[in-house]
Amino acid sequence: MVFLGTASCFPTPTRGVSCTALQLDDGQVWLFDCGEGSQIQLQKSSIKPGKITKIFITHLHGDHLYGLPGLLCTLGNGLDPATGHNTVIELYGPTGIRKFVTTALGLSRSPLVFSLSVIEIVPTQQQYPADWDSWKVDHHLQEEFKLPQECGYRKVECNKDGFWPLLSSKAFKVNAAALEHRIPSFGFCVRESDGAGSLDADKLLGLGIKPGPIYGKLKAGKTVEHEGMVLEPSQFIGSPVKGREIVIFGDTCESSQILKITKAPDLFIHESTNENALKEQCIQYGHSTPAMAADIAIRAKAAKLVLFHLSPRYKPVGEPLKKEGDYSASTLLAEARDYVQQQNSGLVVEIAHDLMEIEIPKKNKV
Amino acid sequence: MVFLGTASCFPTPTRGVSCTALQLDDGQVWLFDCGEGSQIQLQKSSIKPGKITKIFITHLHGDHLYGLPGLLCTLGNGLDPATGHNTVIELYGPTGIRKFVTTALGLSRSPLVFSLSVIEIVPTQQQYPADWDSWKVDHHLQEEFKLPQECGYRKVECNKDGFWPLLSSKAFKVNAAALEHRIPSFGFCVRESDGAGSLDADKLLGLGIKPGPIYGKLKAGKTVEHEGMVLEPSQFIGSPVKGREIVIFGDTCESSQILKITKAPDLFIHESTNENALKEQCIQYGHSTPAMAADIAIRAKAAKLVLFHLSPRYKPVGEPLKKEGDYSASTLLAEARDYVQQQNSGLVVEIAHDLMEIEIPKKNKV
Repeated sequence: MVFLGTASCFPTPTRGVSCTALQLDDGQVWLFDCGEGSQIQLQKSSIKPGKITKIFITHLHGDHLYGLPGLLCTLGNGLDPATGHNTVIELYGPTGIRKFVTTALGLSRSPLVFSLSVIEIVPTQQQYPADWDSWKVDHHLQEEFKLPQECGYRKVECNKDGFWPLLSSKAFKVNAAALEHRIPSFGFCVRESDGAGSLDADKLLGLGIKPGPIYGKLKAGKTVEHEGMVLEPSQFIGSPVKGREIVIFGDTCESSQILKITKAPDLFIHESTNENALKEQCIQYGHSTPAMAADIAIRAKAAKLVLFHLSPRYKPVGEPLKKEGDYSASTLLAEARDYVQQQNSGLVVEIAHDLMEIEIPKKNKV
Repeated sequence: MVFLGTASCFPTPTRGVSCTALQLDDGQVWLFDCGEGSQIQLQKSSIKPGKITKIFITHLHGDHLYGLPGLLCTLGNGLDPATGHNTVIELYGPTGIRKFVTTALGLSRSPLVFSLSVIEIVPTQQQYPADWDSWKVDHHLQEEFKLPQECGYRKVECNKDGFWPLLSSKAFKVNAAALEHRIPSFGFCVRESDGAGSLDADKLLGLGIKPGPIYGKLKAGKTVEHEGMVLEPSQFIGSPVKGREIVIFGDTCESSQILKITKAPDLFIHESTNENALKEQCIQYGHSTPAMAADIAIRAKAAKLVLFHLSPRYKPVGEPLKKEGDYSASTLLAEARDYVQQQNSGLVVEIAHDLMEIEIPKKNKV
């Protein structure tokens, strides 16, 4: 997990706005949010932009969104125009994301080289604020405004269990849950499938069995008879590997819906815009304090909480405070840890800074 | 004049994309183009974002445009929400600019605090490429999608003299001319009005005349009789000050239309994306070489040419080239200067780097 931008509101020369990259074992990169300047942050990081295959947008506020058209244009630069359309990038985001991207790229006449598939997450009526219609902005794209590179479009509605099933492959499930904010906002839960245990090749070699069809059969869970021996898979296959689970939040001031889609996440990434003393103001703007973040992470039985989306007034931990009125992110970290201690929870808490990387180790199932 | 971003195509951690700020004597700032990350570049510069009163967009390509929604959001942050609407920012750009801004800010539900007035420059049919309609993107905003902060909207068509008169105040005239590019693109000419010469107060004091109504009458060009003396304005008013003229280009591969709106500009800011040897490729993508830039600047009788919008492959002048395949902007500068010498012109040529500032001195009329 690479934190490309950890500030809220607006980017500065030293801090980016929301953008977080999940690097998968197979090399793919999934991006979560894309505030203005995310493509610049990517260049500073270890992430290869060409490996991005999916982009998830939590909500349509500018500090999570306005870097998207530029990034999409730049991603095409590295591709061969003749074959680039074979590369498909999936874009997930709330209703309106398709209109935003299509309008920006369409007005600029920016050919993307790769193919773009848009999946819109349709908010429920409850997610819209009372003044929603006063703006008179249609979030739906008129049919005729399709980008030439668009290779697919679908909508995902909230299911009867109260969440949005976005993706379900052999290796991953991604679900979204509604977060309370000033506009429709979502939290994503990425769950890796459990993996089979590994084959104990040394043990097989000790019995004189060399790599070949027998290895494949044992891996597939079949009992094998070989030169008078009965080989049971359980003798040679290690414990299964537990799939990892990561939760990544958009902005929110109330997020209990997330509990519908999580089960003991390894990593819980939650906004923490302002300190506990500013809770009232925080909630008024649809945001969270460190104690609020820690509370939901504990309730979700998360192993580790990482705070991000910090107001720019909080300088990164360890950076000297130069003048009165300067605040440190260490305040936010301490407040979350205090709350965890009060609750006698074992939750580990960290606070993100730009370009911070976190590895999520695999665990054998117990 | 402050060059906030001088690279073409995409921003990097060390170079911004197109954004140039003109600081007026009265403190106002006019911005020309606003590529992604321009608000970050502004923070690094001497420009106070709160002084921006007008933004001119040359064309709708992303490297000139995608920083605009974020900048507009951030500009409102410094204003008092109760009185902010009294501040009006004028946005000029090709047809489609209103749809772009309204869609981006509308989908994000971003209230601007200040009032926004949009002036669309309507391209002529000749400016559209042959494949224009294949994208099926409507550049016009439907009437119902008006931003709550929008306080004015008008369109400027090409006049019978072949240019777009954008603004005409007591102090300034701004006209636009069509530039040939892949999409409709414009060059702007900002002309300051000639100023009256200054009153020679020392001379008046020497005659025993103290500051008062007589000073005002002389400044207004009136002859004054005072204690038997006949005071003629010409005796006490210095030479008039010549208004300065600045030309700022969007992307182009052919720009002779600009000659319709310029008369001997003090400063001519022209794109120079690639070197002379790449002229064919440059023109294919609608761009210019140093020789092309110098040629039109000479024809316009400019005093000084500044090259900008350089391909990111050209490192800033003076920056060491680290590996084979690295190129220096000094190549572009030398090529433009060579061309000027060949033409026996007195044109001064410079090349812009990020955060470079140029002052345009006032001159007395000869």
